Amino acid sequence: MADIKLSKIATRAPKGTDKDATKAKTKLLIDEIKVLQDVLIASGKKSILVILQGMDASGKDGVTKNVFGTLNPIGIKVHSFKKPSEEEFAHDFLWRVHQVAPAKGEITIFNRSHYEDVLIQRVHKWIDEKTVSQRFDAINNFEKLLTQNGTVILKFYMHVSQEAQLERLEERKTNPEKMWKHKDQDWEERKLWKQYINAYEDVFKNCSKAAPWQIIPTDHNWYKEFLIARKVRDALKDLKLDYPKLITNIKK
Amino acid sequence: MADIKLSKIATRAPKGTDKDATKAKTKLLIDEIKVLQDVLIASGKKSILVILQGMDASGKDGVTKNVFGTLNPIGIKVHSFKKPSEEEFAHDFLWRVHQVAPAKGEITIFNRSHYEDVLIQRVHKWIDEKTVSQRFDAINNFEKLLTQNGTVILKFYMHVSQEAQLERLEERKTNPEKMWKHKDQDWEERKLWKQYINAYEDVFKNCSKAAPWQIIPTDHNWYKEFLIARKVRDALKDLKLDYPKLITNIKK
Repeated sequence: MADIKLSKIATRAPKGTDKDATKAKTKLLIDEIKVLQDVLIASGKKSILVILQGMDASGKDGVTKNVFGTLNPIGIKVHSFKKPSEEEFAHDFLWRVHQVAPAKGEITIFNRSHYEDVLIQRVHKWIDEKTVSQRFDAINNFEKLLTQNGTVILKFYMHVSQEAQLERLEERKTNPEKMWKHKDQDWEERKLWKQYINAYEDVFKNCSKAAPWQIIPTDHNWYKEFLIARKVRDALKDLKLDYPKLITNIKK
Repeated sequence: MADIKLSKIATRAPKGTDKDATKAKTKLLIDEIKVLQDVLIASGKKSILVILQGMDASGKDGVTKNVFGTLNPIGIKVHSFKKPSEEEFAHDFLWRVHQVAPAKGEITIFNRSHYEDVLIQRVHKWIDEKTVSQRFDAINNFEKLLTQNGTVILKFYMHVSQEAQLERLEERKTNPEKMWKHKDQDWEERKLWKQYINAYEDVFKNCSKAAPWQIIPTDHNWYKEFLIARKVRDALKDLKLDYPKLITNIKK
């Protein structure tokens, strides 16, 4: 994959993009996804893994809610990866991730993922560079295994500007409905912005073998939701799945 | 790893090996393993994964019982892999295996393992050769991941002769204490002996990167137990672990 320089990529919707028209298109896309999801479940041959990564307040939760929130929950699983537990730390970093990989017929959303193990852990120097490089390989191998088994992996980097992040973090201090999201730690991590950008760019470079990264501008939530819904619809459509034919031994 | 030809390797203890003396040595080895296991648990840094593979009646259950049966169960886990469940089949072949990989401080025994996915499945042509080759890679990558995380993998092929197997399968038909082990299927699989040997030799050739295979003659149970106990003792000793020092902030 060609080197990605995040500073060269817009975080906003292209000038002149019509907000209401875009929202209407997103709604239609989600209707299409619902139909395609039904076939995905029925055919039980393939699965979709959506990986959402990005800075704090880059809009990961919003995607989960607004793009996937109305799909059939029988075929949707969401996993939010937090600080590993003691038991998780006693295993390799992919142990907890592999367990929740999608089964055939499922769409699984990773809200944060195994990439945290080469992002926050690297930025804070909790791991050395040799481990980072071993983990890049392990991630590529793991994603290849899933891909060979019929999983389509969609990796989205939620590309937010420092200004938009500041606005959103500030809102969490004042909006009573958002205060529960406020964490002092987010303000500390914000100071490491440059280091995170570097670590992300290195991830894009080293971990795009099994599945490419897609950079999603997220300063406008309505635009981000449209882009992701379109990618998901396209991925489902490309699977060209059909409802299985009737199988029965019962004679009339 | 140099090519292994099983037909060239003995299935019996070397001539003149003293049975009682060997059994006495095994007992001492197991005592040593117990002491070393206590440090393994206490230090919580490393783990041991023992993989037992071999034809039916090659003596896998006996190893589990007689070599590992008296160790501290707090640090021992045994997983016998059977035909995958529907949920397991809906995931990649390593999904169920990764979940039960050892945590730091543990000794885990796999009675059969992910290798069945390139043995029984290949011999019966349930998978094509492209899948076999993808799985070899996936196994090597998986074992590398575990190794890099502090797991020592000991892979034992239980090398039994066709004659000794016949004797043991026959005994299951007549000995009331062994009848529960009899399965008609074992007699069917026995007809595929040559194909299994070929599949095993191919496994040794292709899946010895992260950890080598050790061929254990198993026509004599007492000899097999001695060899495996010695390998396990050596592996634990090589870890050079110590009891952690006291950590406390309580002032007297």
